[in-house]
Amino acid sequence: MNSNQVKILDCTIRDGGLVNNWDFSVDFVRDTYEALNNAGVDYMEIGYKNSPKLLDADGCGPWRFCDDDFIREVIPEKKNTKLSAIVDIGRVDPSECAPRSESPFDMIRVACYLKDIDKGLDLINQFHNLGYETSLNIMAVSNSINSHLVEALEKIEHSVVDVLYVVDSFGSLFPKDIAYLVKLFKEHAPSKRLGIHTHNNLQMAFANTLEGIELGVEFLDTSVYGMGRGAGNCQTELVVGHLTASRYDMKPLLKLIDDRFVPLSKEVEWGYNTAYALTGLFNEHPRSAIAMRKTPEKDQFYPFFNKLTSVETHSDI
Amino acid sequence: MNSNQVKILDCTIRDGGLVNNWDFSVDFVRDTYEALNNAGVDYMEIGYKNSPKLLDADGCGPWRFCDDDFIREVIPEKKNTKLSAIVDIGRVDPSECAPRSESPFDMIRVACYLKDIDKGLDLINQFHNLGYETSLNIMAVSNSINSHLVEALEKIEHSVVDVLYVVDSFGSLFPKDIAYLVKLFKEHAPSKRLGIHTHNNLQMAFANTLEGIELGVEFLDTSVYGMGRGAGNCQTELVVGHLTASRYDMKPLLKLIDDRFVPLSKEVEWGYNTAYALTGLFNEHPRSAIAMRKTPEKDQFYPFFNKLTSVETHSDI
Repeated sequence: MNSNQVKILDCTIRDGGLVNNWDFSVDFVRDTYEALNNAGVDYMEIGYKNSPKLLDADGCGPWRFCDDDFIREVIPEKKNTKLSAIVDIGRVDPSECAPRSESPFDMIRVACYLKDIDKGLDLINQFHNLGYETSLNIMAVSNSINSHLVEALEKIEHSVVDVLYVVDSFGSLFPKDIAYLVKLFKEHAPSKRLGIHTHNNLQMAFANTLEGIELGVEFLDTSVYGMGRGAGNCQTELVVGHLTASRYDMKPLLKLIDDRFVPLSKEVEWGYNTAYALTGLFNEHPRSAIAMRKTPEKDQFYPFFNKLTSVETHSDI
Repeated sequence: MNSNQVKILDCTIRDGGLVNNWDFSVDFVRDTYEALNNAGVDYMEIGYKNSPKLLDADGCGPWRFCDDDFIREVIPEKKNTKLSAIVDIGRVDPSECAPRSESPFDMIRVACYLKDIDKGLDLINQFHNLGYETSLNIMAVSNSINSHLVEALEKIEHSVVDVLYVVDSFGSLFPKDIAYLVKLFKEHAPSKRLGIHTHNNLQMAFANTLEGIELGVEFLDTSVYGMGRGAGNCQTELVVGHLTASRYDMKPLLKLIDDRFVPLSKEVEWGYNTAYALTGLFNEHPRSAIAMRKTPEKDQFYPFFNKLTSVETHSDI
């Protein structure tokens, strides 16, 4: 694919917020926006757009809610890089949201599990009617039965959603799995533009993203220095450095990494390690690995493997 | 490919020795052999077989020379895992080497640049005549002119070498480059079994190895916990964990990582970081990144990028 056709959507603040409970300062986020804009990155996902009525703040930073007025204070003058926010089923009330023409946001992304597809498409419909670009990010497809996925894809094909994402929630997919899913998505939702969101549990985040590009996926989720839940995401700087489109420039991202993300990485942990590889290999949510990395036994991978494979852990099978 | 057909060649002590100047204790190496054998790994590369007459020890550990008697003391009873050593052009005298029947080694691997192909094949010939399995590892193919490579492949096709390696010395190759090279190697050296040796500068070591497997590459170089020069190699534990052949078992490797490699990784550095990604993106030897990681500016990637791209650095172009 011609790299002029792809769109990079940096989700550092949103997915990275899962690491530090969205505890980013306004200056940190502002610097990130400036660097992403100067690097030619197409979209910045600045957080979740949840309703404070439906989700308790519980010590989370403001990027968990992304109030329009607050975001306008953070980024008073939007430049080329568009803004997006993600919403969860049951945590947002679209009737409280301003139309796109009065909002700092350009795109609203709906994350949902396959079982919630109807609710997801209902939200998509409401945000579409408010004028937003929309995407649907179906989580945990690696744990779905194919027939359920196909049924959902056929509903999506007949919906108003703009972009449909292949999401590797558990970082358990390999390039050939991405190829399989992209083919399936194209077969059953042929009119939709595709996106890809990867996790780096098996060090496949960048490789899977490249496989997506080869197969015509247009929207690439990335994060600066890979910051994201658990093993993190595909590095924005690698994708920007690799793509040949002249609008992309890696240097502003390197400066941002030096000034902001290296220091942050000394305070909170994200990125590949063997514990995340194990949950990826077992196609499991990384929550057990995330918990284990916060204990004194954080580097004891053999007992962790035994725990993951013990009868007690899998007593529901 | 059926994973029963592949052979895993663990080169931790050899390539990892480039990180710590081969300063591994005998117990460390013995534990590594035991774990690799219990994990079902097919070969262990225990070091370089250089002649002390031709290469000054210069503070290096004994794994830089791999004297037969010494290796027999380390591993008095060889089990299923075979032993290999690598040799460099001009640093080994095959006439000093015992035949395979009197040596602990099963395989001798010759590493050479394309310009030294005749010298490389001459060494291969001598080790073959001593009864060893042999491989030829052509380094830095990403910096070779195709016509030179094709000429070399045709010589290799007519040689006695058993295994021919695709080596990504600079960690600059992507799966589609591996596919291109494997096709080229198969076209011009069709009778040879193929191997792959990757580096993780762009987090492609495992992805490139998987691409090799898909295309029929049989010998997979890996290292425990990825320990190898600069960004390191493809992790043995990931390949063992991923392949379905029943002889492979990840658990002994996880125990070894917990007991030996996690503590070592706190003392010496290897593995992916942004500096190695930059030399990979620029298709350069990682030596500048290795040097930079030993300075107080080890996390200053923006100035490092500027140095890599400055006129002064590239005054020879």
